[in-house]
Order: sequence, then structure tokens, then C-alpha cells
Amino acid sequence: MDFRHSDRSLEVQARVRAFLDEHVLPAEGVFEEQAARARAAGTPHRTPPVMAELTAAARGRGLWNLFLPDPVEGGGLSVLDYAPVAELSGRSVAIAPEAMNCAAPDTGNMELLHQFGTDEQKARWLRPLLDGEIKSCFAMTEPAVASSDATNIATTARVSGEQVVLDGLKWWSTGAMRPECRVAIVMAVTDPDGGRHARHSMILVPMDTPGLTVERSTSVFGYDDGPHGGHGVLRFEGVRVPVANLLGARGAGFAMAQARLGPGRIHHCMRSIGMAERALELLCERASSRTAFGMPLARQGVVREWIAESRIRIEQARLLVLKAAWMIDEVGARAARTEIAAIKVVAPAAASWVLDKAIQAHGAAGVSDDVPLAAMWAQLRTLRIADGPDEVHRRSIAREELRRHGAGAG
Amino acid sequence: MDFRHSDRSLEVQARVRAFLDEHVLPAEGVFEEQAARARAAGTPHRTPPVMAELTAAARGRGLWNLFLPDPVEGGGLSVLDYAPVAELSGRSVAIAPEAMNCAAPDTGNMELLHQFGTDEQKARWLRPLLDGEIKSCFAMTEPAVASSDATNIATTARVSGEQVVLDGLKWWSTGAMRPECRVAIVMAVTDPDGGRHARHSMILVPMDTPGLTVERSTSVFGYDDGPHGGHGVLRFEGVRVPVANLLGARGAGFAMAQARLGPGRIHHCMRSIGMAERALELLCERASSRTAFGMPLARQGVVREWIAESRIRIEQARLLVLKAAWMIDEVGARAARTEIAAIKVVAPAAASWVLDKAIQAHGAAGVSDDVPLAAMWAQLRTLRIADGPDEVHRRSIAREELRRHGAGAG
Amino acid sequence: MDFRHSDRSLEVQARVRAFLDEHVLPAEGVFEEQAARARAAGTPHRTPPVMAELTAAARGRGLWNLFLPDPVEGGGLSVLDYAPVAELSGRSVAIAPEAMNCAAPDTGNMELLHQFGTDEQKARWLRPLLDGEIKSCFAMTEPAVASSDATNIATTARVSGEQVVLDGLKWWSTGAMRPECRVAIVMAVTDPDGGRHARHSMILVPMDTPGLTVERSTSVFGYDDGPHGGHGVLRFEGVRVPVANLLGARGAGFAMAQARLGPGRIHHCMRSIGMAERALELLCERASSRTAFGMPLARQGVVREWIAESRIRIEQARLLVLKAAWMIDEVGARAARTEIAAIKVVAPAAASWVLDKAIQAHGAAGVSDDVPLAAMWAQLRTLRIADGPDEVHRRSIAREELRRHGAGAG
Amino acid sequence: MDFRHSDRSLEVQARVRAFLDEHVLPAEGVFEEQAARARAAGTPHRTPPVMAELTAAARGRGLWNLFLPDPVEGGGLSVLDYAPVAELSGRSVAIAPEAMNCAAPDTGNMELLHQFGTDEQKARWLRPLLDGEIKSCFAMTEPAVASSDATNIATTARVSGEQVVLDGLKWWSTGAMRPECRVAIVMAVTDPDGGRHARHSMILVPMDTPGLTVERSTSVFGYDDGPHGGHGVLRFEGVRVPVANLLGARGAGFAMAQARLGPGRIHHCMRSIGMAERALELLCERASSRTAFGMPLARQGVVREWIAESRIRIEQARLLVLKAAWMIDEVGARAARTEIAAIKVVAPAAASWVLDKAIQAHGAAGVSDDVPLAAMWAQLRTLRIADGPDEVHRRSIAREELRRHGAGAG
Repeated sequence: MDFRHSDRSLEVQARVRAFLDEHVLPAEGVFEEQAARARAAGTPHRTPPVMAELTAAARGRGLWNLFLPDPVEGGGLSVLDYAPVAELSGRSVAIAPEAMNCAAPDTGNMELLHQFGTDEQKARWLRPLLDGEIKSCFAMTEPAVASSDATNIATTARVSGEQVVLDGLKWWSTGAMRPECRVAIVMAVTDPDGGRHARHSMILVPMDTPGLTVERSTSVFGYDDGPHGGHGVLRFEGVRVPVANLLGARGAGFAMAQARLGPGRIHHCMRSIGMAERALELLCERASSRTAFGMPLARQGVVREWIAESRIRIEQARLLVLKAAWMIDEVGARAARTEIAAIKVVAPAAASWVLDKAIQAHGAAGVSDDVPLAAMWAQLRTLRIADGPDEVHRRSIAREELRRHGAGAG
Repeated sequence: MDFRHSDRSLEVQARVRAFLDEHVLPAEGVFEEQAARARAAGTPHRTPPVMAELTAAARGRGLWNLFLPDPVEGGGLSVLDYAPVAELSGRSVAIAPEAMNCAAPDTGNMELLHQFGTDEQKARWLRPLLDGEIKSCFAMTEPAVASSDATNIATTARVSGEQVVLDGLKWWSTGAMRPECRVAIVMAVTDPDGGRHARHSMILVPMDTPGLTVERSTSVFGYDDGPHGGHGVLRFEGVRVPVANLLGARGAGFAMAQARLGPGRIHHCMRSIGMAERALELLCERASSRTAFGMPLARQGVVREWIAESRIRIEQARLLVLKAAWMIDEVGARAARTEIAAIKVVAPAAASWVLDKAIQAHGAAGVSDDVPLAAMWAQLRTLRIADGPDEVHRRSIAREELRRHGAGAG
Repeated sequence: MDFRHSDRSLEVQARVRAFLDEHVLPAEGVFEEQAARARAAGTPHRTPPVMAELTAAARGRGLWNLFLPDPVEGGGLSVLDYAPVAELSGRSVAIAPEAMNCAAPDTGNMELLHQFGTDEQKARWLRPLLDGEIKSCFAMTEPAVASSDATNIATTARVSGEQVVLDGLKWWSTGAMRPECRVAIVMAVTDPDGGRHARHSMILVPMDTPGLTVERSTSVFGYDDGPHGGHGVLRFEGVRVPVANLLGARGAGFAMAQARLGPGRIHHCMRSIGMAERALELLCERASSRTAFGMPLARQGVVREWIAESRIRIEQARLLVLKAAWMIDEVGARAARTEIAAIKVVAPAAASWVLDKAIQAHGAAGVSDDVPLAAMWAQLRTLRIADGPDEVHRRSIAREELRRHGAGAG
Repeated sequence: MDFRHSDRSLEVQARVRAFLDEHVLPAEGVFEEQAARARAAGTPHRTPPVMAELTAAARGRGLWNLFLPDPVEGGGLSVLDYAPVAELSGRSVAIAPEAMNCAAPDTGNMELLHQFGTDEQKARWLRPLLDGEIKSCFAMTEPAVASSDATNIATTARVSGEQVVLDGLKWWSTGAMRPECRVAIVMAVTDPDGGRHARHSMILVPMDTPGLTVERSTSVFGYDDGPHGGHGVLRFEGVRVPVANLLGARGAGFAMAQARLGPGRIHHCMRSIGMAERALELLCERASSRTAFGMPLARQGVVREWIAESRIRIEQARLLVLKAAWMIDEVGARAARTEIAAIKVVAPAAASWVLDKAIQAHGAAGVSDDVPLAAMWAQLRTLRIADGPDEVHRRSIAREELRRHGAGAG
């Protein structure tokens, strides 16, 4: 195992760090205020204007599309090399990723289009996404079935001549409410009689296609995630798109979804670690500045245990994510599937733990939005469910482990 | 120990249960919709109209002010006898307590007025509170100091002739934003040279007193708690009230705050248990209705462990709260202080655990507001900080335990 | 729920407490020394001579067979009334239960004989057991199958004319190695074609019956449990006893085993709580007498958290055990089965937690046998497996809970 | 970070693996039997004869003293390169380390002698230790003081002319009881007026020096650790050795003890991970071969969670230990002190967790000595205390973290 970062990565990290210090962190308050104003004005999904300044600054500094390994369109960074960039962006997770055009779900969608898109699809959707001119969403999860088992997905996409007709109900399409969102990548059953993992395809559906209704947004622990376009509930009723809108091979949807998740999970996990680092920093600052029962919190044994355990959990989680990233680079996401499953369990859990303690040390301020802890916690809690709940990942890891020991059962 | 409930309590419980089934639970959706509409209209703190119907129904059924032991004005129930009523109200914690005029902070304020108020104070504030005509708030916590150590409180109330002049900044005054809120009970330093626990007094401050500004509301994990009046940030600048507004003896603020907390904690803890019971019910229903990997969740070992552990933790927490309640009745809150500290740690923690598992079993729905789990979780998380963080309560319990074993240190 | 103890129970408790202080605790060192000497002499299973003095003293004080509800032969105490006696005996778990003839497995065996034995069986085995003249063992667990599922039991007891012929291998027959052990109650399949819970019977097998070999003793975390007769591995090869040795009805073995477990679990759990109380006492003493980094441990936050959490867990566990005991008395073991399953999970776990912290606070002494903590911990760890592992009990609790909520699955 | 192992390390690992498979694992039963026989014969501290065969085999294969970085006397391996060798030896922790002359406390003692010994000291003690002809012990911990704070050490070593006179009581001198043990390295106060970290020196004391009595051995959770020489209680009464027996500089004892711990902790932690891997293997095998309630354990959700969590914890712990090892090689033990403290907390805890689950899955067999789990668990539990309890290490980590964030407190 060799987790050293390339000189290119180290140089990019330094510039991202400077961008955060000089632009992003100072903009956090402004962003929140503008979001609150938009909400009060009845337009909660309008992007706060400060974001345009931030994206301009990021682009001007060459900190744009760094997630994409392609050296022309993206950052030319391996997964391992991009990992610390993702971590840094997690320190200001509500702003930094989008400011650098490195925010989910656009990142995963761009990866899919880059890898599987036809020239026409690329011109129409990938180009403007890469340029930050439009946004996109991903429609996979369904309210009626346990999405932890992806073979449950029930939305149909009947191929009929030159047309594909979609019917079904999706939710948790993050970003779908924002005005800039122009296209959804939809996972649907095209081949109901195919094998368990060969029934689904991905279809590009423009948001203004007749029959597609964005009904409402779901909230997350009270947060509407308005400035990021909320989490749309999408109803498809006889939605027709040309077959040319099929993304990748018909029936390959499941495999493509899996491929999409590999680097995506590294991003999620590293951002989680960035959140944890931010929280630990806030915890230490709070502990040093507050006094109770005649002693600063920083000298109280219980708070010290929190700090030490936080450092320990962060270190361990980061190392495991770096290992998974390194494996994706070296042997591919499929061979790294146990490690990828493991980090999906570990990183949000470790970060949640740290956040919880930072919240506790902040007292009542911790659960409020005066500090960014509660919002980050809510996002991390969601990660323990999104892209498969912890339980499903543990199930896969156990199966693999049992197989290694020659155990047939599983 | 004898935890049997009186016949009166059993009879009241049955009626509360019926009221919940017939009125409260069916109104949950309406309440949420009306709150959303109020929010969209820019009046988030307006009480949803359905509440008036519910209070009328509760009052009509004699389910009003049950928290107050006074047999004339209240329910005539001992703390032990009221405990299961509080638990039941926790099943629909956003509505039921207020519908029965048993919601914090009014309950604690009414207790204080009932116990320590002058006839004039009672006529002016207790009467309308008991009648549900006005609401009140409690101003104790301050943003600038660690409120876990109550001796830190810094707001001053200078007694000058016939007037008391208040200066300081308070926050987390729950309910302060609602139009019906007419009075705040404020904890402030009247006697800076008094002993550590004899410096503070409680003062009744009408909300429209000049110099008192409700600056804004803090949120809790993204929830504005709008329909309950939010959590107000109150600035006191040269606020003058007559000395007749002193509640109880001058310098007795600390002792009164402690007294207020005894039964209040039983209420909080029993409501927590009610939330946990509701969550466990939802967890079981979900587990029975969802299938993943070819089996209903209810047959999957991990989910079963959650269910069993939930039942176990709820049972244990409830028994301990009942013991504390019984002790308050038998020997008083002071002698029961270890038990009261213990339940403050135990009940929210047990309930949070159950909520977390119920959320996980619900998948993405769990973190949304389509089910009441996320909102209940946020409230429970807050309880681990409010009225003293867990760490402070554990500190007291340890001190008491060490004393029992003849250990001087502590 | 009414957990008040009868006057008789309170009076017995006081006498047991005095017996512990005056006889048992002072004898702990002597007992250990005598056991060490017996071990060195190659007779590890000889009962240390001090035990005879202790049993004489207990008997003289009327503290004999208190576990048996029968007012003539036993203590005339209900299960709830006996519970605190069991707790007290757990404070010196290696000596006190046996000194009062209240130690497993004899207690369970005496209960079975008292309830189901014929007059002849009673005269031959119950009488001398009640008089402390002989000891007995219970042979249920088998090494070859998962005993967590009792229907797996494979030892056969073929009824052939007037004889029963036993073949099979049992282990964890506690006490089997001691010279005083004269009879084993053996669980075996008499009716292989019966229903799943109607195949087994219990058979009384004198230890000197030809074909029965006590092969060896298993140890528990390095402890041989020598003075209590170890844990025997019993081989049955064509062992013949008369059919008159069937205990209770043929095919009723499973039901009788269940019945035997009810009060037995109360005993185990209360003794666990007694161990936890002893450990917490030692923890507090240690914390007060040791200094590290310039402060007594008792003033260090982490140690205080241990102490507080210990008290909290003990209180909760005890209340749940008392509830289960009260239910057994009121509605019987069958109706209390969820509670009984719950305490089997809770009490050893809570006690183990306390023990672990007490060990940690004692440093290296904690893992040694210079203090009784390590040995108690080992016993508690074993309880999480014996009489069904935690997982099986949680499974039952979940099933019951799901049933309550109308969920068919499970 | 670059955790790749050198070709030399990979080659050595392969040979160690073969040695384990061909010699060590098959000898486990023999070793236990011989130890039991020695115990029965009243000579529990005699090394089982099979060890001589194993050391001969290891030596013949060049698997000898691999822990020592010195390329002539030792393995010529960096700390990172030796780490996986230590892990492999942990798979059979009772035999493998000693078979390769890589067992504590001799390893640490040899390191000290190699680094700080005079030529004469090397000739007299290091040479025969390296050749496996004698054994040694380390005398640091004292029963009367909290050794977690090393400045508490109270044994005195008065330098008087050409002699050093030792007085005091030490315990947990592992190996002191074995006949081959010839020398103790003793930590004692030579300069009571020196600074807090400059008072202690290390002194070489031959075991047959008059005034030195090995009083008895302490046990660990019932284990006497007989074949490894137990854990000696050493009394020093006017013990005189020449000043030439001072090891290293006078007053440098504390610093040397710290230096000794760096690589030593890597060894302990990697062996812990080896134990965890062995336990996980046993857990998987058991889960595949046992059936309860109609399904192999390997298909039951709870057991699968154990397996997955075990894999996750092992992976994370190993990565952190490798990082610490790599840092010791790159920047030295002092600069790696936070990482070294972290692994001391993490590795035994992770391994203990795995062991506990493996024990549970084995049912009653798990707590017995029929499988090696209980003994490994006991050793791991002890590691959470030895060389500083977890709490002390977390304290250091927190202090460092607070310092990083500019917090003076701590």
C-alpha cells in the first residue's frame, strides 16, 4: 500500500486550502443569509447569489471539475489524489463542493455521461454540466420499495419503437427543485424478464418533459436543503423520450449504478472526514474557551476523552478510505468492493460520532444553526442510509469474509 | 417501592388514550399542513387553528391541566399518577401536551406561580395560563456562559427602589415568538455578593415591557418549532418592572429553579418514553411491511435485535422514571435528586436509541418529515443538553455515590 | 406494580447482611487459600473445609434453603421476596450461595424434585440435598450441537421395558467433579417421534451408575472452578437406570426445563446485580485511595462517568429483575417470559460493564486474583451464554413485540 | 504515507507463514498438554519441552531475533517491515513469538541492552539472550502506586560508592518465575531530587542477587501463564549490585522506558491484530458449521454483522498501526507519539471486540480452553492496562490535539 499523494495532488491541495480560507469560509454567513432571504421570499430553491462569485473564483484558480480524472476536462487526478481535495471541501460542505463544481449528484452524473454518453448526449448535457451552466439530478430511490435492495426498483421504462415511456414514482432526487436542474438520469426497468441484475437501464429525461412532475421536496431533519435544490419527489406518468436518451447499454443500468458508486463513495466518505475535522476543530476551540465548574472544558477528563477518541476515529477512517481509493486506482472498483462497502459504514459513523460530541460540547448552540454542527450531523445521518444502509454493506462484507474462509453459506 | 397507579390515574389514562386515538393522532397531518401554510405566509409562529379544536375537546373531556397536583385547578394526581399521562402525551409530542394544557414551559411556569406567586401575580398570570388564554416563556440559559453550571448566569436584575432593572441576553426561551406569549419568568442576578446559590432571583417580565426585544428564534436541527413559538433570543436593555414582579423570595432563584425541575424532569422523561413507544410501534409496522433480499425486515436478525433492544431499554427507562416519580411523592425532590439526575440521562438516551433504529428501518423516509421520527429525534437530542447536559448529571450521581462509600473526594 | 418486600423478607435480608459481614466476607481469603492448597495437592475439587463452618453458621441462623418458596422446607419467600437475598449472596458469589444452600445447580434440581419428584425420589435425593449432605448436577448442554436451540439436544434415553438406557455426551455439568455430587438430572430424547417440544424427558442418574464417565472438567477463562466441582464432561455409554428414575412426565422435559429456568434466572440476575454492587463499592474505594497525575481518581471526570453509569445501569437492571420477579409471583413464569428473557440479557450485561470499569480502575490488580473482580467478570461473561445466549433471548423478545403490533412475521 | 513492505519483508513473511503452518499451529495442542502436565507435577513454570524443538526449527529457518533491526544480530527489518511478522506471530501468540525469540519482555530488554549496554553488559546478558540461552524480566510496575503515572514509581536505588542498593516492591514482572530467567531490568529512583522525568534509572539485577525474592506470581483472569514464567512479584530488600550494572545514563530511566515502548507497542498491537485475525477465522468456521433454529449461523443477520464489523475494525486498526510503524521509521518514536498512543488504545480494543464476538458464537466452548479464544481475550484485556491504561493514552492524544488548535489548556 502506498498512499503518498502525487506532487500534482499536493499542489492542488494547497490551492484548495487557500481558496477555502480566502473565499469559502468567509462566505458561509453570507450564503446562509441569502438562503434565508430566498426562503422568506418564497423561493427557497434559488441559488444564493454569492455562489456565482465563488464559482468564478474557483474557476479562475483552476479549481474546477477536479473530481473528473480526465486531464482535459477534469483535474487529471487519480482517485487517491482527489481524495484529500474532497476532504477539504467537506470542511464547508454546504458551499465548497458546489463552488468547485464537485458536488453530488452532478459529479456522478458527469462521470456517467463522460464514460457512457454518446457524442450527442455529451454535447447536450455533459458540456453544460462541466461548464456549470446547468444542473442535474439522479432518480433511483422509490418510496414504495426497499431501495436497499436495488432489484426492487419498480419504475418502468417501456421501449416502444423509437420511444421510451416511463411510469413510476421516484424520490430523494437531490437538486431536482432548483431552477438550473435540466435533466434527470432515471433508473428504470426496461427488461422485466431479464436476469435480476439485467432488467434496469438508465434514461436521460429532460426535466421539462411532459408527464414528469416534481411534486414536492422532502426535508432532512427539518432542513429543506433549499439552496441545493431540495430532494425532489418525481412522478413519471407516460413520460416519453427518444430511445437515443438511453444512457449506456440497455439492461446495464445496475452495473452502471455500481460503477457510479465507487469513486462517489470515496467522495462522500472523504467529505465526511472533512466534516469531522471541522467539528473537531470547533470542539477544541469551544473546549478551550468555555469554563464550567471552575475549569475550562479542555481540562475536564470527559471532554478530553471525546477529543482523543475523535482524533483516533478520524485517523482510522481516513486511512481506510485512502486504502479503498488506492485500490480503485490499482485494481478497480469491483476488486475493491469490500473496502468500498467498509468505508461507507465507517466514515459517516466516525464523523457522526465526532459531530455528536462537538454538539454536546457546544451545549444549546450545538443543536442550533448558529454553528454548522447540527446541519452537518443531519447530512451524515442521511449518509448512513443513502446509497445503501449500513446493514446492507455489512451483509456484503460478511459474505465476502465467509467466502474467504471457504464457507459456502451466505 | 410501589408503582401501582391509583384508580383515578387508571381512569384518566383510559380517557387520555381515547382522546389521542379519536382526536390527536388524526389531527397530526392537519396540524403539519396548517403549520406549513403559516410558514409560507410568513407567520411561522401562529398557532395552527386545529389546536383550538383540540384544546376545546380536551377541556370538554376534563383532560386539562392534569400536570398540576392541585385537585381544584389541576388533575389531583400525584407525580407517579401523572407520569403515564405524560407518557401518553409523548406519543404525539407536537400536539398532545399543548392540547391538554400540559406543555412545557407553561407547566413549569404555572407550577412556580401556583407555589410561589402572590395573589396578584396569580390573578394576572396564573389564571389566564390555567385557562389557556395566554402563554409564557422561561428565560434562563445565556449564550455567553456555560449554563450547565447555573452559577454562571450573568444577566443582572438590579433592585433600585421599587423597581427592578434587567440587563442581559437570554436564549432558548421556548415559546417566546408566539403571539400568545405574554410573560417571561427571568432568572437573573439580584444579589451579586450573595453566596454562590443565593445570588439569583426570578422576575416576572411582561413581554411588552420596553427594553425587552425578542431578537430572533434559534432552530433545532433545522426545525424552527414555529407552531410552538420557536426558541427566542431575548435581549434585556434597562428593562424596568416593579419589585412586585419578583417571584418568590429574593435570592431564592436557584432553589426555585431546582424545585421547578423535579416534576418537570419526570414529564420530559415520560414524554421521551412515549416518543420511544411510538417509534417502536412504527418500527414494528415498517419491519412487517417491507421486504428486502427476499424476506420481510421483521424476519431479519439485525432488525429483530433492534426491536428487542428497544423494548428492553424502554422498559428499564420507564421503571427508573416511575421510581423517581414515586420518590418525589414519598420523600420529595431533594431526596430523589440522584434518581432525578439518572432519569435525565437515561430516558432521552434510551428513546434516542430507539428513534435512531426506527429511522434506520424506515430508510430515506426516516430522515424526512413524512414520518414523525426525525422531528422526535431532534427533540430528544436536545433534551440531552437542556436542563443540564448528561455530563453534569453524571457528575452529581458520581459524587453522591462516592459519598455513600465514605469517599471524601468529589 | 408493587415491588415492596414483605416484612419477613426485610427481616431475612437484615440477617443475611449480618451473616455476610460477620462470616462470609472474612472467610473469602481463607476459602481461596484452602482452594489453592487443595489444587496444589492434586485434589482441586475438594470443598475447602471453611465451607463446613459457614454452612453450619448459616443453618444455625436459619439462613438455609431460602430459595425454596415452601415454608416448611424452604424460606417461605415469594420470588420477589427472595430476590434481594439472592442479590446479597452475589456480593460474595463464590461462597455465600453455597453457604446458605442456595447455589446453582442444586437449587434448580431441588425445585424440580420438590415439584415433580415421586416420594421415593424425594426421599433418596431431595432430602439429602435439602440437608446439604449431597450435591447434584444438571446435564443438558452438549458439545456437538448448538444448545441455544434446545430442540437440538441429541443424547438418547431409550425406554426398554423397565429400564432406560442413556447414550450421549454432555458438558458444562457444573459441580460434577466434586466428590459430594451423587446424582445428575439428565435431559435426553425419549420420544424421537414426538413433537418438537415433546421429545425430551428428564432422568435421574446416580453418578456411580456403570457407563457414566466424568471425563474431565472444562475451565472458564482460566478458572477451573475447582472448589465448586468444576464443569464436567459426562459421557453416557449404555447407562441403565430403572424407569422409576424418570423425573416428571415422559416427554415433559422441555416444559420442565423452561419452568426450572424462571426463578433460576431471577436468582442468576440478582446475584449478578450483587456482583455489580460489590464491584462498584470496590471501584469507589479504589478511586478514593489512588492518585494519578496529581489528583485522586475520584476527582477525574472519566472515572466519575464510570461510577455514575454504573449506578444508573445497576438501578435499571435491578428494577427490571424485580418486575420480572413480581410478575412470576403474580401471573406465572409463562406470562412473564418476555421480562424473564429481558433480564437474562440485561443483568449480566450491566454487571459486566460495571466489572469492566472496576477492573480498569484497579489497573493491573484488576485482572489478577488479588481482588475478586476478574473472577466475577468471568462468571458474568459466561452468563451471557449459559441458559441461552443473549441473541436467542432477544429473538424471543422481538417476536413477542412484533406479535403485539399485529405483525404476523417472525 | 507508503506502507509497502520491502521484498525482504515479504520474503520473511512467507517463511514465517510456512513455519506457523508446518510447526507452530500443529504444536499448540502438544504445548498445552505439556504445560498441563508440568502444572500437575508442581512445576508450572517449566518451559514445555516442545518449545526447544520449535526454537530449533525457527533458528534453522533463519526466523530468529527478527524483531531486532540490526542486520547482523537481528532481522535487518525496519519497524514497518517487521510489523506483519509480529502480526503473524500473534495468530499463535502463546508459542510463535517465543519460538522465534521475539517474545516480550525479552525483546524490549534486548533492545535496551543493544542500544544502551556496555560491552561487558552485552557479553554477559545480551549475547545469551540473543542465543535464547537465558531469559529476562522487566520490573517497573509497583503494587502500591498508580503506575499509569510513571513518575509515581517508588522503588529506590541508592548509589553508594561503587554499589547500588535497591529497596522496593515490584510486580507484573512477566517471566520472572521461569528457571531460565537470569536477570531483571529494574526501574528505580536513583535521584529523588532530580526533575520529574530525571529521577529514575534502569539497573541490571541478576535474579540470584541476595535480597531479591520472587514472592509469587499473579494470575490473569485465572490464567497462571505458567509456561511463560508467570508474572512475578519481586521484593528488593537491600539488594546490592555494582554501579556497572546501571543500564544507560543515570537519571535517563524514564526516557529509556519511553524509547523501549515505541517499537514494543507496534509489536503488541500487531500481535493483537494477529489474534483478531485468528479469532475471525474461527468465528467464520464456527458460523459455517453450526446450525440453530434451522439455519447455519453464517446466514443469521446478527452473526453476519459481527463478521463484517470484525473485518472493518481489524482493517482500520492495522492501517493505523502500520502508519505508526512507518512514522517511527521515518521520523522517530517521539514525533510519532500521538500515533503510538492511538494504536495502544485502538488495537487491543478492536481485537477484544472481535474476540468477544467469536467467543459468543462458540457458545460455551468459547469461554473454555478447548478453543484459544478465552486465553487470547484475557491477554488482550490486560493490554488495555499494561504500558499505560487507555485513559492515559487518550489524555495524551487530547493534549496534543488541543495544542494543535492553539489551545493552551491541557
